[in-house]
Amino acid sequence: MTGTPAPFTAGDYEARMRRAAEAAADAGLDGVLIAPGPDLVWLTGYRPVETERLTLLVLRAGQDPVLVVPTLEAPDAAAAAPMLTLRDWTDGKDPYEAAASLVGSEGRFGVSDNSWALHLLGLQGRLPDTRYVALTEALPMLRAVKDAAEVARLAEAGAAADAAYEEIRKVPFAGRREADVAADLAELLRHFGHSQVDFTIVASGPNGANPHHEAGERVIERGDMVVLDFGGLKHGYGSDTSRTVHVGEPDLEERRVHDVVRAAQEAGVAAVRPGAACQDVDRAARAVITEAGYGEFFIHRTGHGIGVTTHEPPYMIEGEELPLVPGMCFSVEPGIYLPGRFGVRIEDIVTVTEEGGWRLNTTSREMAIVD
Amino acid sequence: MTGTPAPFTAGDYEARMRRAAEAAADAGLDGVLIAPGPDLVWLTGYRPVETERLTLLVLRAGQDPVLVVPTLEAPDAAAAAPMLTLRDWTDGKDPYEAAASLVGSEGRFGVSDNSWALHLLGLQGRLPDTRYVALTEALPMLRAVKDAAEVARLAEAGAAADAAYEEIRKVPFAGRREADVAADLAELLRHFGHSQVDFTIVASGPNGANPHHEAGERVIERGDMVVLDFGGLKHGYGSDTSRTVHVGEPDLEERRVHDVVRAAQEAGVAAVRPGAACQDVDRAARAVITEAGYGEFFIHRTGHGIGVTTHEPPYMIEGEELPLVPGMCFSVEPGIYLPGRFGVRIEDIVTVTEEGGWRLNTTSREMAIVD
Repeated sequence: MTGTPAPFTAGDYEARMRRAAEAAADAGLDGVLIAPGPDLVWLTGYRPVETERLTLLVLRAGQDPVLVVPTLEAPDAAAAAPMLTLRDWTDGKDPYEAAASLVGSEGRFGVSDNSWALHLLGLQGRLPDTRYVALTEALPMLRAVKDAAEVARLAEAGAAADAAYEEIRKVPFAGRREADVAADLAELLRHFGHSQVDFTIVASGPNGANPHHEAGERVIERGDMVVLDFGGLKHGYGSDTSRTVHVGEPDLEERRVHDVVRAAQEAGVAAVRPGAACQDVDRAARAVITEAGYGEFFIHRTGHGIGVTTHEPPYMIEGEELPLVPGMCFSVEPGIYLPGRFGVRIEDIVTVTEEGGWRLNTTSREMAIVD
Repeated sequence: MTGTPAPFTAGDYEARMRRAAEAAADAGLDGVLIAPGPDLVWLTGYRPVETERLTLLVLRAGQDPVLVVPTLEAPDAAAAAPMLTLRDWTDGKDPYEAAASLVGSEGRFGVSDNSWALHLLGLQGRLPDTRYVALTEALPMLRAVKDAAEVARLAEAGAAADAAYEEIRKVPFAGRREADVAADLAELLRHFGHSQVDFTIVASGPNGANPHHEAGERVIERGDMVVLDFGGLKHGYGSDTSRTVHVGEPDLEERRVHDVVRAAQEAGVAAVRPGAACQDVDRAARAVITEAGYGEFFIHRTGHGIGVTTHEPPYMIEGEELPLVPGMCFSVEPGIYLPGRFGVRIEDIVTVTEEGGWRLNTTSREMAIVD
């Protein structure tokens, strides 16, 4: 564990904005329109909340970035992102007029996936000859490829999540509610430096067969498999790891299912190399599970990207032909879910290097026995 | 303070969905498309998080409501909203295909303001002959008019916020950071039954002149004006109230500015009656401040609606001609902000009754002196 990393500088953000504008031009776009949320955080460091009041960063190649911002929020924006030119608008004025003068009357623009429909419709209504495409479709590589400083932050977040896992294995499971173990996990993530906890899944026994079960009132029993899947943000970058533990000794089938998932996860990570497609990672993991006869019980994609959020493109999924590039960081998390019985999931964050996949989570993937 | 209110029933939600579909038809729309967020919570009680995986409720007059939902989340959706027909889609399939078959190839649809651009563009791309309008523009009254059970919840949330205010007046201010007082406020809101704290603004001295200042490192001093503005959700409905307190005795100008804001707030509330326009509330409050010579320092609209969120339409703002209707609930919160010096804001939630505006916050609006 290291100390607090040096914050990104105005120069870092300017370079990212320039890169985004140039990538947009290369992709045949006339610019990109960035809404509050992870795109804006990554490009500027400014973290407003998306609301009905329009805040919009307009990036065009060869032009200075301009932020359309409510007058009320202009002081915060100026403090958070001093390198931006602000175009503020006051309650009662038409914010789309301010944006329209920057966008121009025609052209094709990338727009943040999470931009509100209200705002997109406002622009479309005012500028009927403009066209829009979701940013992750237009520029899928933009945030997907991390630089060294970002990978270092993701590694640190991963190490903190791993430290939380080592500690959670020591707490009692049997006789406690899932929600109690989840609260312990959240506290551990914060203890190890997370500023934000996004999820602490504790899915015991039959609840483990629902991949999206979070943590509930069920009291964990001896003999339960328990899926743990947890993460959040540390120094602005995400962690996300899963391990499946067993309360007391597992039976033969539980052990076999865990072995299959573990082998599938190894195969997925082994498929990571520059030039492979995202779907190859999914196929490699899925093939192991299918061969073992559990294919119908692996009911989700194999992974998702991670960065300034815990859940973002690229997706490791059949049909995603995007090539892997060094610096991409994503989860490899196959699972088997046996309805009414139990589930197993094993997940590491992996970064693509020239030499292949490199895990940012390094705790044992053997099934841990807990009390 | 009462106990936990009876939860809304499937029948309540079915009635809301039917009303929405009928209102859409009356407004010349072919249906409404509801994204995760407050619209979906209000219509169904189901609270997923909006993500890149499409979840979309399709409401059309005379047809059963259908929820397009990722297969992974279908069990949660079925449990939360058993009255819905689910149309689930699996990772790797095209979710817009599922939605398109429900929407049809042409027509005009209201869409949740906060629906992601990604999803709107997905629908627009697949259904080029459909048109969309933001739901709050198409059906501004839909969630704005609360029924008796909703007003009761808002009143209870308001009473809890008032109780928090009575307690926060007793804590020491001078010598503590704004963030410390804000933490006390958050704890008090939770103590009085809030499940979620949305904001705890503590803006002392010159920070008070920035209406969107939250709470920071500044140490509060004797002689400071301190704007307190806080709220969150209790039993699923919002609170939001502001009072401006003074650490020790105020000087004459501080007292005068506070008196002006208080008079403006009274005037705003007095302007609330069925048939008045939203902008009339703004005008009434603003006139008092302008007459007193502080017009240029009242730099935001006078109010916003409240319901299953703490911040929603209708807006009390110049240009908003929407008529007030019994059951509407919104803030009346004029302020004066003197740059570099201090700010004052006084805010109550008001509900429209046949007899006029009825405050859901009832603590004293006189300037409280704190230590």
